[in-house]
Amino acid sequence: MYTLKEIQTKIGEYFAAENFNGTPAELYQPIEYTLALGGKRIRPTLLLAATDLFGGDIQQARYAAIGIEIFHNFTLLHDDLMDRSPVRRGQPTVYRKWDENTAILSGDAMHILAWQYFLKQPHSNSHAILQTFGQTCIEIHEGQQYDMNFEHRNDVTIDEYMEMIRLKTAVLLGGALKIGALIANADTADTEAIYNFGIKTGLAFQLRDDLLDAYGDTATFGKQTGTDIRDNKKTFLLLRAIEKGNATQQQRLRELFATTPQDPTDKINEVLDIYNQLDIRHEVEQRIAQLHDQALQHLDQIARPDTSKTPLRTLACTLLDRNF
Amino acid sequence: MYTLKEIQTKIGEYFAAENFNGTPAELYQPIEYTLALGGKRIRPTLLLAATDLFGGDIQQARYAAIGIEIFHNFTLLHDDLMDRSPVRRGQPTVYRKWDENTAILSGDAMHILAWQYFLKQPHSNSHAILQTFGQTCIEIHEGQQYDMNFEHRNDVTIDEYMEMIRLKTAVLLGGALKIGALIANADTADTEAIYNFGIKTGLAFQLRDDLLDAYGDTATFGKQTGTDIRDNKKTFLLLRAIEKGNATQQQRLRELFATTPQDPTDKINEVLDIYNQLDIRHEVEQRIAQLHDQALQHLDQIARPDTSKTPLRTLACTLLDRNF
Repeated sequence: MYTLKEIQTKIGEYFAAENFNGTPAELYQPIEYTLALGGKRIRPTLLLAATDLFGGDIQQARYAAIGIEIFHNFTLLHDDLMDRSPVRRGQPTVYRKWDENTAILSGDAMHILAWQYFLKQPHSNSHAILQTFGQTCIEIHEGQQYDMNFEHRNDVTIDEYMEMIRLKTAVLLGGALKIGALIANADTADTEAIYNFGIKTGLAFQLRDDLLDAYGDTATFGKQTGTDIRDNKKTFLLLRAIEKGNATQQQRLRELFATTPQDPTDKINEVLDIYNQLDIRHEVEQRIAQLHDQALQHLDQIARPDTSKTPLRTLACTLLDRNF
Repeated sequence: MYTLKEIQTKIGEYFAAENFNGTPAELYQPIEYTLALGGKRIRPTLLLAATDLFGGDIQQARYAAIGIEIFHNFTLLHDDLMDRSPVRRGQPTVYRKWDENTAILSGDAMHILAWQYFLKQPHSNSHAILQTFGQTCIEIHEGQQYDMNFEHRNDVTIDEYMEMIRLKTAVLLGGALKIGALIANADTADTEAIYNFGIKTGLAFQLRDDLLDAYGDTATFGKQTGTDIRDNKKTFLLLRAIEKGNATQQQRLRELFATTPQDPTDKINEVLDIYNQLDIRHEVEQRIAQLHDQALQHLDQIARPDTSKTPLRTLACTLLDRNF
């Protein structure tokens, strides 16, 4: 068994050993650039940790771990183009550093590369692994489309929002864990339990992201706060505030989320005031705690020694910034 | 053994039996729209014909055939966006009928769908089939990037051009045939021979496309002529004319291919005049004949009865509009 830190070190080594350059350079340089930006490598960590939990050899999961991270970065590359986001991980996004067509074509090539990494290492479970990967990939795209649809709708429910973030964010965490379990030939019940652990953790992770965007964080969260409010994004916070607020608060929120002022400071402050009147922050924190509990219950179901679950338990706590 | 016509009928039935709709509709409608536009279904025809040639059951190749056509249409969808092409098969392209983000995201989903179709039917050769598909996919993207690079270069050689069209066009024909052969468990030599038949046919097919764009065709070719000249595309015709022409002709071609007049009629006529002076049309026709001959030699190498090769022989003749 490996510790979380050892797994993370392994992933660093695995990526360092790869060479993503190729010809024509115009196609491969943006891929190399994107993957060199780093990030927390959460998905490959989950994948290797699951393989290890079920007694598999993490070397056997090496290329699937790289593949899932490449796929994740491909979705970010195309999302940044669709959202016209100029910066990712402190650096210009591909469509800004190069151009739109480069972002489209290099992203597409990166997507193929993800599949090719999955094919580098055949397993007895290969078919199930690839089907899980394909299902996960298509669901993420469905989630992204729902997210885009929600921009034009004013009647999004909290249930719809939770389903959207399940698809857009949670299934990739669940999928990474399930693939790790399949590589280790875990049984069906355990594979399902670890998948559900990932889904619940992913939902909580996205709610935490919504919360941090509104309220920020002391040190760990580097992003500007209030961007979701500025951009009129329908987050859990807004939807719950509209659900919970009185007619005046509902009306005012709808008005504010129909404006895009040059300087959004007053708008952000007024929205946060309403959130505070309605105790939204506390509600989201409670929801995160509840999802985290559910995630841990799924982990408890798994027929492995409790100590072997420490890396995944620690990782979920780190992702959700919750200690207990 | 099936006739070419029977194989084409089968493909029509296979596609008619599929339902590409799904939710969210905004993601799947453009996919359904794209696949309903039809086209000649050349790649699935090649794939099924190869399976049949090597004694395989074409029902076993059904989903791979659909998958390769979905992949091909995905590349067209993204190419149309990158090229800002308004029309495909007489209908508005996805990015024009919907918008750019729809074209990006639906294209990406279509790309996943292609892989998912390949995974619908496991084979004893699945790993080799998927690796061949992945290799083919990445090479097509390399070819597309070279094509884009050539727009900004004035020193493209004919060898570079042939390598570009090998990647962009020919490997998908070769790949379709190879996958069909792998499904039928053909041996390595035969698999290689059928792949090379596809490569040579694909190269000839692209040269014929270049020729038709300049000179048109009586009935079968519906496109406007001279668009490559209008758009300053580096085709085999131009590269050969520059190679063969005297200093004055070279100079004039370079000048003309640096202009984009409102009405391109005079430009097109002047370029065609130079091509005619240099007998370029005849040269390209010879090159096509040579590649066609080479393709047929590869087909001859295959250890199957000659009559069983009729569908592929007929298809190549149809694609190249050559009878003998």
